[in-house]
Amino acid sequence: MESFKVTKIKGNDKEAIEDSVAVEVPFTLIVDDKELVTLLCMPADLEDLVRGFLFTSGLIKKEGDINKIVIDHQHWVAHVELSNDSIAKELIFKRVYTSGCGRGTLFYDAADLAHKFKIISDFKIEKERIGSLVTEFQRKSETYLKTGGVHSAALADDKAILIFREDIGRHNAIDKVIGKRLKEGGSFEGMIIITSGRLSSEIIFKTQKCAIPILVSRSAPTDQAIKLSRDMGITLVGFARGDRMNIYSHDERII
Amino acid sequence: MESFKVTKIKGNDKEAIEDSVAVEVPFTLIVDDKELVTLLCMPADLEDLVRGFLFTSGLIKKEGDINKIVIDHQHWVAHVELSNDSIAKELIFKRVYTSGCGRGTLFYDAADLAHKFKIISDFKIEKERIGSLVTEFQRKSETYLKTGGVHSAALADDKAILIFREDIGRHNAIDKVIGKRLKEGGSFEGMIIITSGRLSSEIIFKTQKCAIPILVSRSAPTDQAIKLSRDMGITLVGFARGDRMNIYSHDERII
Repeated sequence: MESFKVTKIKGNDKEAIEDSVAVEVPFTLIVDDKELVTLLCMPADLEDLVRGFLFTSGLIKKEGDINKIVIDHQHWVAHVELSNDSIAKELIFKRVYTSGCGRGTLFYDAADLAHKFKIISDFKIEKERIGSLVTEFQRKSETYLKTGGVHSAALADDKAILIFREDIGRHNAIDKVIGKRLKEGGSFEGMIIITSGRLSSEIIFKTQKCAIPILVSRSAPTDQAIKLSRDMGITLVGFARGDRMNIYSHDERII
Repeated sequence: MESFKVTKIKGNDKEAIEDSVAVEVPFTLIVDDKELVTLLCMPADLEDLVRGFLFTSGLIKKEGDINKIVIDHQHWVAHVELSNDSIAKELIFKRVYTSGCGRGTLFYDAADLAHKFKIISDFKIEKERIGSLVTEFQRKSETYLKTGGVHSAALADDKAILIFREDIGRHNAIDKVIGKRLKEGGSFEGMIIITSGRLSSEIIFKTQKCAIPILVSRSAPTDQAIKLSRDMGITLVGFARGDRMNIYSHDERII
């Protein structure tokens, strides 16, 4: 966060105040000496972001596909070295250049993906637990409360929030949470993703890549997000606030 | 908008309802037979989106740089033919591949850009007018009211909103408004952009490309958005709601 002089107006009152603002940097990922992408992000938990971005974009399959991540905090660059046996090594540049532009997400033949990889999970959770996780999620969103300008994401099990991250971008916040979990070596079984952001198709693809059965947001879904979730076996919850929520797919997991 | 069956939960009440949801499509721009980018967007006003995207990304300099836009509504593809004397023709693919990935915006040497092109404008507006434009803006956001899932953007003069567009992406909504204005052949002098979305650096660059002196949002800015606006001569207004607003730069234009 950084502090700025701001002119605050309320009706006829005009006042000079100091206000906290979220910090944004252009962060470039260089993979095996080739420039891959520039993300606009909040400069915290950058290693988590790199790991999560590479994983949810389909560019690595597991933590072990990364040999080394070196973050240059002066120029906001990450130098990533992939392991030699990484299948992704060959694919990276071809794939990103054909479909990855625009939002940094790859969605090669969405329909095909959906059928190939359907999430099978017996995981169930009480609706009251979803409510209390969302309340805990809100309480943790400190930067948001101060600046009003950031998204949050969390990974939770059926008891509590395990990982919480923030970013100016809703995609980045989710990638950071996933990257952190990968680093810890934990699995995504019986996990829930919670996000402050809108639910578009890209968010569903990220969830699918981790085989996470439940995705919860305070915001609205798009039609694509609903259709993909139904096909992919993901329980999609929107407008989750207090004891209210809308379940758009696979409501058998919310009991 | 599309209608979906949704399980609505409120406390112990569980109810099956029909809910309206915003539609999302992957929309691919093919420029002179080469694939440029795939945007995830709402399938309305797509010609405006193409025009605005090409302009705010710096790929065309004026409306006349486009010979033809043909929209394929079956496959969600735009075929764009640039005019032969368009300078952009040569640049397009080199530039997009080096810095455009991630968010579809180009920002070649931001600091340099800021100094080269500072907006000089005597345009002034009463703070009460900003308040009433923002109220009108809110009233127009019908899709939002129904689905909760879309962003809005508008172009206004000091009297009223002239162009209003919506999209699931905040960048797209702004590009649509700008594209529409370009098509009409109108100038951007004495104009205000209003957006529902957060103010990050990319939004400032879009504003600068049009030399629009005032940018107003209901949401928060990032530090980069404030710094760039100060350098570029843009009046940046955030948290504009009713008779309240925060002015982050060049407050001399709000009287």
